[in-house]
Amino acid sequence: MNQVYITPNEWSVIEEGFNAERVMSSESLFSLGNGAMGQRANFEENYSGETFQGSYIGGVYYPDKTRVGWWKNGYPEYFAKVLNAPNWIGIRVLVNNCELDLNTCQKISNFKRELNMKEGWHKRSFQAILENGIEVKVEALRFLSLSHDEAGAINYQVTPIHQSAEITFIPYLDAGIKNQDSNWDDQFWEITNVENTTNQAFIESHTLKTLYHVGTFMESKLFLNNEIQAIQPQVEKSKSHVAFHYSVAVEAGQTASIQKFAGYVTSLNHDASQLIDASKNVLNEVTSIGFEGLLQEQIEAWANIWEMSDIVIEGDVKAQQGIRFNIFQLNQTYSGKDERLNIGPKGFTGEKYGGSTYWDTEAYCLPFYMATKNQEVAKNLLIYRYNHLDKAIENAEKLGFKNGAALYPMVTMNGEESHNEWEITFEEIHRNGAIAFAIFNYHRFTGDYSYIPEMGMEVLIGIARFWQQRVNYSEDKKKYVMLGVTGPNEYENNVNNNWYTNYIAKWCMEYMLENLAILAKDFASDYKRILKKTKLKDEEIEAMKEISANMYFPYSEKYDVYLQQDGFLDKDIATVDQLNQEERPINQFWSWDRILRSPYIKQADTLQGFYFFEDQFSKEELEKHFDFYEPLTVHESSLSPCVHSVQAAKLGRMEQAYEFYLRTSRLDLDDYNREVDEGCHITSMAGTWMSIVEGFGGMRVKDNALHFEPQIPENWKSYTFKVNFRNTVLSIQITQDGFEISADKEVKESIKVFGKEISPVITTQKVNS
Amino acid sequence: MNQVYITPNEWSVIEEGFNAERVMSSESLFSLGNGAMGQRANFEENYSGETFQGSYIGGVYYPDKTRVGWWKNGYPEYFAKVLNAPNWIGIRVLVNNCELDLNTCQKISNFKRELNMKEGWHKRSFQAILENGIEVKVEALRFLSLSHDEAGAINYQVTPIHQSAEITFIPYLDAGIKNQDSNWDDQFWEITNVENTTNQAFIESHTLKTLYHVGTFMESKLFLNNEIQAIQPQVEKSKSHVAFHYSVAVEAGQTASIQKFAGYVTSLNHDASQLIDASKNVLNEVTSIGFEGLLQEQIEAWANIWEMSDIVIEGDVKAQQGIRFNIFQLNQTYSGKDERLNIGPKGFTGEKYGGSTYWDTEAYCLPFYMATKNQEVAKNLLIYRYNHLDKAIENAEKLGFKNGAALYPMVTMNGEESHNEWEITFEEIHRNGAIAFAIFNYHRFTGDYSYIPEMGMEVLIGIARFWQQRVNYSEDKKKYVMLGVTGPNEYENNVNNNWYTNYIAKWCMEYMLENLAILAKDFASDYKRILKKTKLKDEEIEAMKEISANMYFPYSEKYDVYLQQDGFLDKDIATVDQLNQEERPINQFWSWDRILRSPYIKQADTLQGFYFFEDQFSKEELEKHFDFYEPLTVHESSLSPCVHSVQAAKLGRMEQAYEFYLRTSRLDLDDYNREVDEGCHITSMAGTWMSIVEGFGGMRVKDNALHFEPQIPENWKSYTFKVNFRNTVLSIQITQDGFEISADKEVKESIKVFGKEISPVITTQKVNS
Repeated sequence: MNQVYITPNEWSVIEEGFNAERVMSSESLFSLGNGAMGQRANFEENYSGETFQGSYIGGVYYPDKTRVGWWKNGYPEYFAKVLNAPNWIGIRVLVNNCELDLNTCQKISNFKRELNMKEGWHKRSFQAILENGIEVKVEALRFLSLSHDEAGAINYQVTPIHQSAEITFIPYLDAGIKNQDSNWDDQFWEITNVENTTNQAFIESHTLKTLYHVGTFMESKLFLNNEIQAIQPQVEKSKSHVAFHYSVAVEAGQTASIQKFAGYVTSLNHDASQLIDASKNVLNEVTSIGFEGLLQEQIEAWANIWEMSDIVIEGDVKAQQGIRFNIFQLNQTYSGKDERLNIGPKGFTGEKYGGSTYWDTEAYCLPFYMATKNQEVAKNLLIYRYNHLDKAIENAEKLGFKNGAALYPMVTMNGEESHNEWEITFEEIHRNGAIAFAIFNYHRFTGDYSYIPEMGMEVLIGIARFWQQRVNYSEDKKKYVMLGVTGPNEYENNVNNNWYTNYIAKWCMEYMLENLAILAKDFASDYKRILKKTKLKDEEIEAMKEISANMYFPYSEKYDVYLQQDGFLDKDIATVDQLNQEERPINQFWSWDRILRSPYIKQADTLQGFYFFEDQFSKEELEKHFDFYEPLTVHESSLSPCVHSVQAAKLGRMEQAYEFYLRTSRLDLDDYNREVDEGCHITSMAGTWMSIVEGFGGMRVKDNALHFEPQIPENWKSYTFKVNFRNTVLSIQITQDGFEISADKEVKESIKVFGKEISPVITTQKVNS
Repeated sequence: MNQVYITPNEWSVIEEGFNAERVMSSESLFSLGNGAMGQRANFEENYSGETFQGSYIGGVYYPDKTRVGWWKNGYPEYFAKVLNAPNWIGIRVLVNNCELDLNTCQKISNFKRELNMKEGWHKRSFQAILENGIEVKVEALRFLSLSHDEAGAINYQVTPIHQSAEITFIPYLDAGIKNQDSNWDDQFWEITNVENTTNQAFIESHTLKTLYHVGTFMESKLFLNNEIQAIQPQVEKSKSHVAFHYSVAVEAGQTASIQKFAGYVTSLNHDASQLIDASKNVLNEVTSIGFEGLLQEQIEAWANIWEMSDIVIEGDVKAQQGIRFNIFQLNQTYSGKDERLNIGPKGFTGEKYGGSTYWDTEAYCLPFYMATKNQEVAKNLLIYRYNHLDKAIENAEKLGFKNGAALYPMVTMNGEESHNEWEITFEEIHRNGAIAFAIFNYHRFTGDYSYIPEMGMEVLIGIARFWQQRVNYSEDKKKYVMLGVTGPNEYENNVNNNWYTNYIAKWCMEYMLENLAILAKDFASDYKRILKKTKLKDEEIEAMKEISANMYFPYSEKYDVYLQQDGFLDKDIATVDQLNQEERPINQFWSWDRILRSPYIKQADTLQGFYFFEDQFSKEELEKHFDFYEPLTVHESSLSPCVHSVQAAKLGRMEQAYEFYLRTSRLDLDDYNREVDEGCHITSMAGTWMSIVEGFGGMRVKDNALHFEPQIPENWKSYTFKVNFRNTVLSIQITQDGFEISADKEVKESIKVFGKEISPVITTQKVNS
């Protein structure tokens, strides 16, 4: 259900009043993450109402046996699943032995959640009359530490309001968890050890099949009115569970609180046999810093992130909250520190879509990380794909390609394909193009060519080979055609000559050949090594030249536009405004064949090509294509509004651009797609950033120069963003009256505004690291 | 694995020698059925080797919860499954307390199976040295009674060869069975009662969800040297099982035998609360007739069937065995007595493909039943679809169609769609056309128009409405187009303007309008009733006229052929003979996208249209299309060779026609598709009949005249077949030298051979009833 209930606020996401129907949506929206792990905003205390429990560890996954109706040759055996990990946030609360459970309380008042994005914590407060009639005030503050990314901390306070009461806190670890989306109800975990000391507890478990070993740990401290209580807790233990019982008598108006420090250590970063020791080290470190100290570190770490990545909007609270929510979630999901990780479409906020990596990373996320982090972060995203090249070659071989042709998977964790719909898995192959484009984009933006001779060239060769083998010559058209594909618009399946796919295929081959020539000239030893390794033959190069020079592109003379695919004009071209509003989103109301026959476009397809390759088309061409395709677009992919926002801005249609901006930036906060309970749309959040920086700000890199064509929505006073362009941090402020660009140091490259070279004011800023 | 081991024989299917690897294939090939029930040729005694147990009851099914990888709107919730029913054939055999089990015997010799098709029984004989060293000779004869179709009988004989031994027979009923293809390992049955008398036993159970009540029953008699033994058996009973223990001391060379009479009564034909009584009635009836008496009845019943449906081939044992196997299986599967039943693609020989009814019935099976049975049998097949019309309308509504448009399901048991692949379920809509064509075909052959005003007209209106709504006008082509379909060639999915589908759609609308005019003129009260019921509007009629007059058909000027679909010529048109033989069948070696991109055709598609509507095309046109498409056809559907055989014969290419004939007639006996262990291809067996009668015999009905253009394969001496044409039975014998046609009475209609009217010789024959 579509629920709009978040209080507009510049720095926080706020929910006021308790509504059981919103619990699952809020669990998504108030999610916490620190790049290494993340969790849905589940309650610490017991909750018997409807909830979706989720705690996730970056890089820890399980290959769930594929479930299909009808097997097709080439399907993967397994779907690598984001894995629900042991619960370490749990704290049962008893008041005079009566369980605190918001689902069974007599009355709940003053319920409030706040996700403080500036400082990186989540606070929940409420008053509740329990089943035994006792009323308590509760405040629970929680964060996942950025500076100690294996740990999080909770401060949980209970104040009996009208009478004294015995408060019992039962902090626990629970490894008896399941994935909601398990295909066959399999157990994903095996628990091998549950142990404890006086006030520390540990569970060792490992994933089945993948054998990721995880130590889950906790330590708790009891306070009464902020004074630590030297209580020896009782221990409760089972095969999958360990808990401490702390009880304390509390006068009316006094506050009992428990601080819980907990988290995970994993065999990704530690010796699997040393996880208890590693856990103890983390606990000793964080408890010695203490809750307040950790919180202070957290605030500083987030300040550091915001310093570089914040976008400040004056005069539009909802727009401000939207962009900050997007930037916050992106930073919670991926820090760029670990090249084994990537950006899952739901990040750490849900399980849907299983695998962690889609083409979203290259097509939508890279620009954000490139501009708001050091370039190593973006490079790590490229290295991730290089490390998966062998698997991409295997994947292509499985489908009948040869000689090192590479097809990157649609969905992956470890480089192996996870997805199992033939029209996607085997046919939505344009993803390969986005991976090549990211290499180009990285080089264009950073000026760093090193990735290409070191690694990228091999990726480009594998991809180009795939395209060369994937096309065939049509005797009928006297051109090379690409049959049986699914373009970015997944509301068309198994079409011939999807313009976007043909275009990016041609571009990939040309870009590979261009770089091959550069390597031959300037990187002789790399060139030699790569030719030897890839065994690239002259015939292949000739074929690629021939194909890219003679690729077929469907085109309509009547409309003077490229057609999304062959036969597009056979459709009944009725625009979206003629649709029955009660049947939207159509993916929830129409049968699949009806969607496929319709002219409706899920997300930018031809226009995605105009976005990537805009320099190859005039503004008039863009306008013509935008006017042809946008009215047919239902934007039922989270990745759609952002690209349209950028293009509407480019066409000077700021009203429309602003509308798309709001839709992309508040997609989850306002639950446009009626599914936020399943998790947030993380990857499209980077598209929101593009909407402002590339859309309104008109930022582009051309020929090593940074260009801006700033515009501003009518109702904004100003907006400000920063970009790290080749190690110079530029700050751009745009007001209704003009713009100001400052830099933290002398800029080597040329900066142009509306084509005119300018010199930024030099201020003192530091690059976030 | 592809195993060729069946001994050629004119009247029997014979296997000699025991090979554990062939057990599952033989279980399919030696299957027994009597129209009401059927079973795989599982062993009566215990067998611990690899086996696929199956016993099925016509019309008793279970709606198994759909399993998919990714749900699409419009998918059915359930897949109606052919249901493995309680096992009543089981007879454990102990020799001096040692279990007879062919998987553990020390030695097996003289193993032989015979499926006697002439007389309708299965016999298995062998000698075996058991684990305890005792050697016995065994002979087991089994049949499912045609005359008492709720019962079957087994005579199981054991002879110790070298020494006396105690022989124990344990005939049992076992209701603790499962379906191999259960989606979620659900139980399909609940057992409510296990009871027995001295020598009769009963199990009452019902299917879950569908609540079909089934009484499974047995009675046994023990013999020593053919003398009945008045032994009171011991009873062994559990929740799902009941068994009798009969032991007898047998001298070397003497024979102990058990006769078991058993079967099912169901709530389809009896009051659910009276199943024990009904079982007793059946048992009393069949035991009073006795084993020999029943067998005699069986031989007579089959003689009666063969009298009408046999095709005699002289000079080619393998061809003879092939056609008889096909005719035998068709008669085992469907008797035409019960309009609730239909012809499942695996009949009673396996579970694959679940539902019982595909378009196979109308497109391939109808002609066989029409020509070899009384016309009521064919009419029952039409009534079956009339009874499902409301469900077909609901099905279309689910996909967004309205006003009584009907889409018949791809796969069904009860009229509801069962299949769940979007490209089939929603798009392989040409099936609707075959259902209309069957109405035409029935009228053409039988001359009986009554079905159309009584029922068929409503079916035709529902189908025509579907097509009218399914097409759209293409501004680009200035024609009506049909987007997003899968034709009969399932190696293409979601194509535009499949020629066959467009053609049959146009034909359906025209045929409906033609019959509407007939009704308006000659059946005024039916016409009025039908218009009132269907609310058919003038606008709809006008639209249908407009569409059928302006339907688009893809066509190639270069090749002067209709194209299978838009864009077909973009493919790399390499013929099948260029394929790597090691990669065939391609559906076992190639990924799905590769198959889709290839030009390879699974089964007749454009040529299927030329088969149905041959009068609308010249022989030259057929030749051109045959020569274009056949070389691209891999015939990986069992339904492909027969249509090609008929057309090759029409083109006078008898060598090729014979090759296709052998392939269709011995598809299972020689296991061409390497999958006979899963069951036999029942529906394509009717296509084998067409290959001879319509192909070699050249039989057609045109303008109420029966035409023949007889040809004969080079290596045959003669072949003879009969057809019941409008209640006259014609017998046609074709030799290398000529032909002879006789009839059982004066023929009213004109009979033409090579266009020349002839008068058949009158002989005395009776129509099979």
